Amino acid sequence: MPASDHSPAAQIPGGAVFPHGSLTGIAGLQPHEIVFLLDEAEQWVDWNRRHAKSQHPLDGLTQINAFFENSTRTLLSFEIAGKRLGADVVNMHAAQSSVKKGETLIDTAMTLNAMRADVIVIRHASSGAVQLIADKVDCPVLNAGDGAHEHPTQALLDALTIRRRRGGVAGQRVVICGDLLHSRVARSNILALTALAAEVRVCAPTTLMPPAIERMGVTPFTDFDAAIEACDVVMMLRLQNERMAGAYIPSTREYHLRYGLTLERLARARPDALVMHPGPMNRGVEIASNVADHPDHSAITEQVEMGVAVRMACLDVLTRRARGVEGWA
Amino acid sequence: MPASDHSPAAQIPGGAVFPHGSLTGIAGLQPHEIVFLLDEAEQWVDWNRRHAKSQHPLDGLTQINAFFENSTRTLLSFEIAGKRLGADVVNMHAAQSSVKKGETLIDTAMTLNAMRADVIVIRHASSGAVQLIADKVDCPVLNAGDGAHEHPTQALLDALTIRRRRGGVAGQRVVICGDLLHSRVARSNILALTALAAEVRVCAPTTLMPPAIERMGVTPFTDFDAAIEACDVVMMLRLQNERMAGAYIPSTREYHLRYGLTLERLARARPDALVMHPGPMNRGVEIASNVADHPDHSAITEQVEMGVAVRMACLDVLTRRARGVEGWA
Amino acid sequence: MPASDHSPAAQIPGGAVFPHGSLTGIAGLQPHEIVFLLDEAEQWVDWNRRHAKSQHPLDGLTQINAFFENSTRTLLSFEIAGKRLGADVVNMHAAQSSVKKGETLIDTAMTLNAMRADVIVIRHASSGAVQLIADKVDCPVLNAGDGAHEHPTQALLDALTIRRRRGGVAGQRVVICGDLLHSRVARSNILALTALAAEVRVCAPTTLMPPAIERMGVTPFTDFDAAIEACDVVMMLRLQNERMAGAYIPSTREYHLRYGLTLERLARARPDALVMHPGPMNRGVEIASNVADHPDHSAITEQVEMGVAVRMACLDVLTRRARGVEGWA
Repeated sequence: MPASDHSPAAQIPGGAVFPHGSLTGIAGLQPHEIVFLLDEAEQWVDWNRRHAKSQHPLDGLTQINAFFENSTRTLLSFEIAGKRLGADVVNMHAAQSSVKKGETLIDTAMTLNAMRADVIVIRHASSGAVQLIADKVDCPVLNAGDGAHEHPTQALLDALTIRRRRGGVAGQRVVICGDLLHSRVARSNILALTALAAEVRVCAPTTLMPPAIERMGVTPFTDFDAAIEACDVVMMLRLQNERMAGAYIPSTREYHLRYGLTLERLARARPDALVMHPGPMNRGVEIASNVADHPDHSAITEQVEMGVAVRMACLDVLTRRARGVEGWA
Repeated sequence: MPASDHSPAAQIPGGAVFPHGSLTGIAGLQPHEIVFLLDEAEQWVDWNRRHAKSQHPLDGLTQINAFFENSTRTLLSFEIAGKRLGADVVNMHAAQSSVKKGETLIDTAMTLNAMRADVIVIRHASSGAVQLIADKVDCPVLNAGDGAHEHPTQALLDALTIRRRRGGVAGQRVVICGDLLHSRVARSNILALTALAAEVRVCAPTTLMPPAIERMGVTPFTDFDAAIEACDVVMMLRLQNERMAGAYIPSTREYHLRYGLTLERLARARPDALVMHPGPMNRGVEIASNVADHPDHSAITEQVEMGVAVRMACLDVLTRRARGVEGWA
Repeated sequence: MPASDHSPAAQIPGGAVFPHGSLTGIAGLQPHEIVFLLDEAEQWVDWNRRHAKSQHPLDGLTQINAFFENSTRTLLSFEIAGKRLGADVVNMHAAQSSVKKGETLIDTAMTLNAMRADVIVIRHASSGAVQLIADKVDCPVLNAGDGAHEHPTQALLDALTIRRRRGGVAGQRVVICGDLLHSRVARSNILALTALAAEVRVCAPTTLMPPAIERMGVTPFTDFDAAIEACDVVMMLRLQNERMAGAYIPSTREYHLRYGLTLERLARARPDALVMHPGPMNRGVEIASNVADHPDHSAITEQVEMGVAVRMACLDVLTRRARGVEGWA
């Protein structure tokens, strides 16, 4: 485990952070808890760039990745994170799961708990499913995305990427553009970025804009050209296939025209603006290829790299109490 | 590996148990072999309740879980068991398997053998498939359920649960209720429980009762209210979806009425009766929710926990000869 | 890692082999590089026959098996190989992949790279997909079969099997019979066997024979009885299901009659001829069961065993530079 004694977060006694034990969302986290996780993750970044990158703080612990909704990238990231920490990592794929045999979600949770899991990572298509499971098990639960609710590790990795590339999050003008109505990524990012004192703008067609979103402390726009003006960070959301036809947007071509990130549009942002996307991208729909691959502006692959580091930090930190790490017991 | 020198089973020289090498069923096991496995499992239970629960007796050994039939829970249990013992665990999923390309089962067995597996765990929809594979490979084979034949680790975990909760198996009056005709769980349990001198009753509608089942040393009932009378243990079987409509039972509602375990019906058993179910449950069909979740009677999550311990014991014991453990070579 | 100082290949300074870093095909390998890999693999064979067969040269390294095309056997072989070397092995299954969400192959490659993979094993239905990925990532890439292009580890394991069973490859008369037009196995084998100075004949119906194949240094036949005459090695190819009906062959029965390997036909080869098949076999189509199972002639299960050893050698050798192994940095 990287030495953390030089980090400001190390000043915080362990017992003062994460009294709740699980990470079900950004909501409920204190800003100093977010910063603590980012500091921890920062140290894993360098670690992961070495070869022979295994550490074994989680040796002998069982991590179950229970993915009730498919997500290759997020599963890979959590699996790599756990294995690098030395955990016994076991994947439970929903497609083969007892859930299909009519078992209730709570019965599944009780089963994973009875197998003496030490940490459970959950992905589920229903908002609130992760909290339901967290309430029933004895070990920490990590939300890997639940319905339209939250995707906290995505928000943490995005904050870490911004912090590393821009020197900090506070005061940055960030625009989040796309399907805000259905996006857990947007929700968690708004919570994390406002907690860290960024100035957050959101932009979507009216059909994809949640009502009263300004209550979350953000400024809504329907005109992307206006929203992107002088922004430090442009965060594009993935347009889900199921929204592409009919009900929400007239066509992907029309969407690209009004809400796609092109080089021309990016020119309205700050000259050194950062471009982000949680992936997988629909090139030519929400983002043009020359923007996605731009050597100076694009931080998209760096986001993936930060993802592993952030998940290592979460797995490490959340299991400290159970492992009896000094200051956390 | 937990010290076993204080256990009575340790008196048995290793060479005297499991001369056959594999565990294809309860049939063929001597009672002292069953007790030996329960004693071994008992020691892993406490081990699994600690953190940092890995031991590495199987370090450097390759365990292949060849599941030709999906079973998320059983696969998870065997995978966790193997990883906690330090084995290199590899899952072979039937859905992606060469079997679909028309390869024979024996060719698959020869392939796994040629890869120098040290132990193979098999689940297969056909009775006898496990024995067929065991005959062709050089390493121990563990039956994780084959057709309507056997599911020996389920019977062992059930026996361990009864032994721990009731102080012993001998003399316990156990009723097994449900689809006895198609249930490998019932078959293995009848063999194990009668071997350990329990008094076993079985209960099913006539359409789901195997002919001449009394030859197995059990008493058959078609009336659940009569069968449950004064029982110490009530073991419910899962009603498979494919039996629910038409041919075997009139309707799930009718089934619940006559063969479902409700609190009212449970009142006919001993006041401290244990309720068991192999999972996943159809709540409201074979078992009512308030029985499944009953804090005093239900041993259902404990069964799951015992499952990991029993599988660790089987994996450990069956590989001892090959590992050259003293007394087993 | 097995000591290799007694092997002739050890005389070659590491820097002189594999300057390209990845193994995308046999094409481009020097004969001494092929021999070097065979020598390395040879040493893993004995190792794998022991129990406690783990070595940990790849400890702390992340191996991603990215299989965009299903192949249970090849995936198992690479997974076992990597785990025996101590790598953290992670499987990415195409069926659940972002590729289905419309992500480009290059985006997937960039993602795996950003997660700091140390070696990526790729299987893909399109020829050239592996090279495309190798061009985009920083770590070695291993081709586990791409379209009709190459399957280099299959050719290496076949060469190792021949070398062990026949004492060498040079001068051996080998006939490769079957669907040469679509077979990456045939292509890689022709390249490896001719590089190692075997005399290679190929045999197929005209509809399955690539044009101008004699330019690869092999002698084409359409009559299997003539082609097999006095051969030391008879290598049968799998007839893919999709070729069986109509367009390429009249019927499987007709195919078996003219191109199936029977005991009668095998009698035309050398008396000690070796029979090989990459598996999974269509018994009764391209090969008769009594040939496939022949105790003297068949080397089919030995091929599977050599497969694990060859893949261990490739994983070990290709990561040496990054691991800073002396002479390879």
